[in-house]
Amino acid sequence: MVDLRVVMVEPKYEGNVGAVARAMKNFGIADLRLVRPCPIGDDARRRSMHGIDVLEAAKKHETLARAIAGTDLVIATSSVATESEKKFARIAATPRVLATKLAEMQGKVALVLGREDFGLLNEELLVADLLVSIPAAPAYPALNVAQAAAILFYEIYGSGAQVARPRTASGMEKEKLFEAFNDLLAESEYPVHKRQRTTVMFRRLVGRAVPSKWEFHALMGVFQRATKRIRRLEAKE
Amino acid sequence: MVDLRVVMVEPKYEGNVGAVARAMKNFGIADLRLVRPCPIGDDARRRSMHGIDVLEAAKKHETLARAIAGTDLVIATSSVATESEKKFARIAATPRVLATKLAEMQGKVALVLGREDFGLLNEELLVADLLVSIPAAPAYPALNVAQAAAILFYEIYGSGAQVARPRTASGMEKEKLFEAFNDLLAESEYPVHKRQRTTVMFRRLVGRAVPSKWEFHALMGVFQRATKRIRRLEAKE
Repeated sequence: MVDLRVVMVEPKYEGNVGAVARAMKNFGIADLRLVRPCPIGDDARRRSMHGIDVLEAAKKHETLARAIAGTDLVIATSSVATESEKKFARIAATPRVLATKLAEMQGKVALVLGREDFGLLNEELLVADLLVSIPAAPAYPALNVAQAAAILFYEIYGSGAQVARPRTASGMEKEKLFEAFNDLLAESEYPVHKRQRTTVMFRRLVGRAVPSKWEFHALMGVFQRATKRIRRLEAKE
Repeated sequence: MVDLRVVMVEPKYEGNVGAVARAMKNFGIADLRLVRPCPIGDDARRRSMHGIDVLEAAKKHETLARAIAGTDLVIATSSVATESEKKFARIAATPRVLATKLAEMQGKVALVLGREDFGLLNEELLVADLLVSIPAAPAYPALNVAQAAAILFYEIYGSGAQVARPRTASGMEKEKLFEAFNDLLAESEYPVHKRQRTTVMFRRLVGRAVPSKWEFHALMGVFQRATKRIRRLEAKE
């Protein structure tokens, strides 16, 4: 079972922060991070109820990067799902699929909740390994952030059975893999303007696959060896 | 699929009524009944967002019996589950079990939500055909009423839904990808005795990720370009 960290990006209404803290307490989650939040006052404390300790222990950060530091997997939430294959950055899993994947994993997972009015920015979505969307009525799919959070906590912690799985790769190992992938793109003279989206594509694919430590190392070996081969040949030129 | 009516019994905070109306709109539910509610004012309207029409169409009733009149099945919610067989009135189903039952049914179903502070009274529970409880942390199992409602709506209407998925790559496309991966291993002088298991590792990883057609083509482009780069450099040697 994963260890969840909840990250709220620029919440505008303190009541929602309190309501998220309460839902966290309801599902036994303790680690709350707030990125540039609105002032947290009485309304947040009132709404947090017995989750007041979660609210008061919440750390504030100036950037999303700081708030997700040290996690092994980053999940972003979005109410805008897309059918366009090229907008891969917005292809989302359902909460149930997400819960199934997390049940197979170990490590620290950041669940990133966006702003009440316009969610997460594209640049914020790009750091995520997985995107999750709650299926809702097409006429009005935008859920309140604390209600969406409660649904996700419920799916992740209420859905039950765990199966023994090999150790999954850590966040640091994955970063090394993405670096190795990038090095290969660079050495291959892969078109510069395509590199970012190709790297994000690869990150998402790896995020969905939930690879084991062994798989990560094997894949990294492939990329590094290819890169070295190119470099050796270049040196001879 | 059933037709859901949501009944709130003596809500104390109008904000919760607004939040329930919003969640109803999110899941395409329109029929809201309020039994002896607190005054409904600006806070409720603000919290209802685009669910304002649901809120404004809500009927008020003096008794629970009136509010559930005309329904085929009555479901009561409770955060206090019991394992005592003698307290049969409080033996509850999980939301998932409830959703499975409702999926097989037709007709009008009343979902009864209790007071924020002490839920539903025993006499109110007795009129229910089914009791549902959301599994939560034993230390603090009492969810906010609007968050509990969102979880139940999600289970009943949303959880089986599929988020739009892009077309996935065909078997033939995948074979080409594995060939491209193999070519890269060969050109990289990847150790021969490790090639087979590395290729199988890659095949499994891709199998779990279920990549889209676009992702396949992007990944194939990466491998082919690296392979070509090595071949071009080799030709110059």
